[in-house]
Amino acid sequence: MFNIALFGCGRIGKVHAVNIDAHPMTQIRAVIDPYTEGAAQLAEKYHADVMTTEEALADPDIHAVCICSATDTHANLIELAAKAGKAIFCEKPIDLSLDRVRACLDTVAESAVKFLVGFNRRYDPQFRTLKDLFESGAIGKAETLVITSRDPSPPPADYVRVSGGIFRDMSIHDLDMARFIMGEDPVSVSAHGACLVDPAIGEAGDIDSAVIVLHFPSGAMANIINSRRSGYGYDQRIELHGSKGMLKAGNVREHLVEHWGEDDCSSAKPQYFFLERYKEAYIAEWQHFVDVLEGKTEPQCTGIDGEQALVLAEASLESLETHQTVNLT
Amino acid sequence: MFNIALFGCGRIGKVHAVNIDAHPMTQIRAVIDPYTEGAAQLAEKYHADVMTTEEALADPDIHAVCICSATDTHANLIELAAKAGKAIFCEKPIDLSLDRVRACLDTVAESAVKFLVGFNRRYDPQFRTLKDLFESGAIGKAETLVITSRDPSPPPADYVRVSGGIFRDMSIHDLDMARFIMGEDPVSVSAHGACLVDPAIGEAGDIDSAVIVLHFPSGAMANIINSRRSGYGYDQRIELHGSKGMLKAGNVREHLVEHWGEDDCSSAKPQYFFLERYKEAYIAEWQHFVDVLEGKTEPQCTGIDGEQALVLAEASLESLETHQTVNLT
Amino acid sequence: MFNIALFGCGRIGKVHAVNIDAHPMTQIRAVIDPYTEGAAQLAEKYHADVMTTEEALADPDIHAVCICSATDTHANLIELAAKAGKAIFCEKPIDLSLDRVRACLDTVAESAVKFLVGFNRRYDPQFRTLKDLFESGAIGKAETLVITSRDPSPPPADYVRVSGGIFRDMSIHDLDMARFIMGEDPVSVSAHGACLVDPAIGEAGDIDSAVIVLHFPSGAMANIINSRRSGYGYDQRIELHGSKGMLKAGNVREHLVEHWGEDDCSSAKPQYFFLERYKEAYIAEWQHFVDVLEGKTEPQCTGIDGEQALVLAEASLESLETHQTVNLT
Amino acid sequence: MFNIALFGCGRIGKVHAVNIDAHPMTQIRAVIDPYTEGAAQLAEKYHADVMTTEEALADPDIHAVCICSATDTHANLIELAAKAGKAIFCEKPIDLSLDRVRACLDTVAESAVKFLVGFNRRYDPQFRTLKDLFESGAIGKAETLVITSRDPSPPPADYVRVSGGIFRDMSIHDLDMARFIMGEDPVSVSAHGACLVDPAIGEAGDIDSAVIVLHFPSGAMANIINSRRSGYGYDQRIELHGSKGMLKAGNVREHLVEHWGEDDCSSAKPQYFFLERYKEAYIAEWQHFVDVLEGKTEPQCTGIDGEQALVLAEASLESLETHQTVNLT
Repeated sequence: MFNIALFGCGRIGKVHAVNIDAHPMTQIRAVIDPYTEGAAQLAEKYHADVMTTEEALADPDIHAVCICSATDTHANLIELAAKAGKAIFCEKPIDLSLDRVRACLDTVAESAVKFLVGFNRRYDPQFRTLKDLFESGAIGKAETLVITSRDPSPPPADYVRVSGGIFRDMSIHDLDMARFIMGEDPVSVSAHGACLVDPAIGEAGDIDSAVIVLHFPSGAMANIINSRRSGYGYDQRIELHGSKGMLKAGNVREHLVEHWGEDDCSSAKPQYFFLERYKEAYIAEWQHFVDVLEGKTEPQCTGIDGEQALVLAEASLESLETHQTVNLT
Repeated sequence: MFNIALFGCGRIGKVHAVNIDAHPMTQIRAVIDPYTEGAAQLAEKYHADVMTTEEALADPDIHAVCICSATDTHANLIELAAKAGKAIFCEKPIDLSLDRVRACLDTVAESAVKFLVGFNRRYDPQFRTLKDLFESGAIGKAETLVITSRDPSPPPADYVRVSGGIFRDMSIHDLDMARFIMGEDPVSVSAHGACLVDPAIGEAGDIDSAVIVLHFPSGAMANIINSRRSGYGYDQRIELHGSKGMLKAGNVREHLVEHWGEDDCSSAKPQYFFLERYKEAYIAEWQHFVDVLEGKTEPQCTGIDGEQALVLAEASLESLETHQTVNLT
Repeated sequence: MFNIALFGCGRIGKVHAVNIDAHPMTQIRAVIDPYTEGAAQLAEKYHADVMTTEEALADPDIHAVCICSATDTHANLIELAAKAGKAIFCEKPIDLSLDRVRACLDTVAESAVKFLVGFNRRYDPQFRTLKDLFESGAIGKAETLVITSRDPSPPPADYVRVSGGIFRDMSIHDLDMARFIMGEDPVSVSAHGACLVDPAIGEAGDIDSAVIVLHFPSGAMANIINSRRSGYGYDQRIELHGSKGMLKAGNVREHLVEHWGEDDCSSAKPQYFFLERYKEAYIAEWQHFVDVLEGKTEPQCTGIDGEQALVLAEASLESLETHQTVNLT
Repeated sequence: MFNIALFGCGRIGKVHAVNIDAHPMTQIRAVIDPYTEGAAQLAEKYHADVMTTEEALADPDIHAVCICSATDTHANLIELAAKAGKAIFCEKPIDLSLDRVRACLDTVAESAVKFLVGFNRRYDPQFRTLKDLFESGAIGKAETLVITSRDPSPPPADYVRVSGGIFRDMSIHDLDMARFIMGEDPVSVSAHGACLVDPAIGEAGDIDSAVIVLHFPSGAMANIINSRRSGYGYDQRIELHGSKGMLKAGNVREHLVEHWGEDDCSSAKPQYFFLERYKEAYIAEWQHFVDVLEGKTEPQCTGIDGEQALVLAEASLESLETHQTVNLT
């Protein structure tokens, strides 16, 4: 049984809390959050203790940390946990600054602790099936990858202001997915965007609609289509076109009951947002982390992956601003 | 070029008129209808003459008749045309009385004219594809056939009263389809029904919802599901389950544009009724009749088929009334 | 926390063991099975004790029993548990003999213990959504219910011989579903069948393909289509046609990735069998039993439901043998 | 009845010949093609005369020309026909050189003849339905348009060499579609591409895979995804995302029969290529031209549309070469 210190008890912290508790090999030992009331509630629910960061990292009974706190605390907590010799699971991103990410990864490397970065979509059964079929040769050589990723509705401008911008906050998942599916790193990035959904997002200095084009060393291209609003739930689709056909992962609907009536034939919308759509992915992700803790496998999503996704997000921003393709080599 | 005498210029007569005219090998030479105004309009449109039955059948330039008149005139016209040596295309049914059908077929047999009965659905590209795939061995040996056939909305009670009842009027198409797909004649019929859609149909002595079960010599079964109302267009589906899988012919939708919105994801309904859904089938049916006229092929749907479908419809009625399975052998 | 005695550690016992253990309000306290090795393994896995029936029922710490043992032990165990004052969850069927079922229910009634019969499909999220939409008025008044239920592949003839026959063993789920969806008890049953899949099933005195038609007091009809073999996984579909349209619950596929290639566009098959398809249903069913234990709700599926489904299965058999509709009133 | 002079009797000429002949208001009067054998065959089939360009344009009985000849003859023929006062239908493109297009359009303007440019996809019932639903307000304000357009298999390098390149030859349809759907002209173009399908295309100086991004004055964006090879038929899809949801026009499949078997559930591929997919579009396009000839409507697709699509294709090429966004204002 592995004892886990959970940092952060917000929305995503609660998702991981459920999965840590449900897994037969892990339990929550400590909850750490400056919002003490929330920490106390979560700790009580899972029979854990509220601790400070120092207490948790000094506790020899704690084997690993699960970092779900505010983005700007990630890098510090990673470094502290690494120095304390704890295995680390950290929600994306490591940091919004590439320099800070690199410094942090150096510290992790020195400590040689196990480190898994949380790009949850890599564990989605649909996308995983697509990747497996591709790797089994179902469509030959990859030519064009099309990722559609649209949030159900836009975040408040206040969130946007501290988010690092659409590329670092939202597209970063798709940039990582492109690397994950294709199995290679892009050689160039071109990004296009507009503020169409909410003028307040534009006033906050960001865009809410984006199209990104990546070129890969193999010649293949990826086309990412993002929007902060779909109007019909969480739109998460992937098409991979290859020399012998296409693989296509569709949305997961809320249910499978159709209504055929006088006006039309209607089906349920896609599941509302990431908590619903990626529920299974979060469980599979935690299973992977447990496998890493048990020494059964190496982390499939490392600090390099966190860094590379951020490199691509920054290049996207540069391309958007310069109206030019940004070369990465 | 074959000259055609068109009997009847109602809804179905007009469907055939368009197809006769559009076919490079046929043209309308005569229009015959007691409703003289309608006959005159149709004749003018297609540069044909209004004739009496006697004139048309005596005209040596007329090669074939297309009988689209009222049901109770079919058998007489078939006999007259046969005696006049004209090739015959006749809309289903030959007659609502089995004795009358048999007498009529005897006359046709004596004359040895070419005779095609119009079960239009046999020419539907979807059902034809299903049959072709089945015959190519795609699902092995047939086990269960499920035919769903639901009209968009119920006919008026006045029509019901002279229609011969749901089995002779509506289910007859599905009974013929079952014989067509399975390639064998049922050995027993069981029918179940209710008046659920419109009490006026019940008052007219008929039912509006039916379930029919057929057993075939091979052991296979067919399950026909009928209703005079779908509420969402013309519901025309076939599933054929075999020893190695299933073939499934779905509805043809009005268009292929989906709308994904706040409430649901909606698609277009099935095409409204037989004029829309079986438009291509009527064209293919006429092509087949032309092939018969040219001597390229034998009629695929003969008097026997018209007779057998009626035998099954009558057995359905008997089963409904006796609450027993009716054996046909 | 409710302590559960689990009777039977075969396939379905293991399904319930996982769910009992995962539920925060229940734990397995005792495992009872004549196959002692299996009982010991399961008991060890869930930190429970192996007990005899007598020990378990005498143990005051045990609040409820979960009966997953062989069918012919159900009625006895129900009666013993009822007399011992334990709440009861029992997998369907109560017994294959209607007399035995009725005697057993009398005993349960005298003891006044809580009693839930396990018709798992009632808790399937798809069918539940269909029922909810129907009850919300989405399609008006019910007219025709069509239930397609096909197993992936036939059971061995040895199983068939002790199964009670297809109606009591397999169709009973669909007969219960028909009552559940329609909210009324049928007034007549007509059943049709054949042995098409495996001659050994016929030699065992059973059929493997069936079509059942039910009439309800409201006039509505239900049409159940069963087969012991689909050839493409577990085919579990429901269509409910009403006065204002149709609701349609489709199969749940193994995944949602499509492959478009040179030959065709392919999708995944339906989930293989009940363990996969009804995984969520079993969890929801157990949640419902916990709600019953907590006194939050009454059992949604009682002894009466178990009895009525068997009444319909027996009437189906009578109809099959007599080739007549069997009236139930 | 309008008499038509048909220039060019290759693949697309034959498509129009069928439609001209089938339309009750038009007939082929003259066939003009340097390949005299082909011209003679077509003329015989449709009871027309083989003529020279001069003869046809001098014939006062000829009301309109249908130009389906080689691309490099279009502009000349348009000018000659305009000077001869004939109404003109011309297959896209007017010319591969923008200067030549503009000179040609000046001549047409001087002559004031009726002039329709053949962008066939504008008449596709699916895309037309999407546009109509959009204009009726179904999804609010347009935000992102995604056009997927993939040919079934690549053309020979010899064709590529004279085609004007992928943007002028293939993407031009999608660039026109983007203008047609959005109802506004783009302000910038960014194009990305690669040679992935066939090295011979690269050796011919072209690419075979492209991604184009357009910005519109309203702020909306369009994303065009092209490939010379799908591997599964003609992939022609449009998604239009708006402020209140999405409209999605899917592919038209070869048929609607599904096969569910041991391995998977398979559906038919998209119709093979433009002759199949746009068959109805060509008929509707010709109907529109007849409406123009009859003075019932103005041409919906004019010389300006032909010119603007070419402007966008040229800007795409410039963007591809400079790796920069090209501004059009």
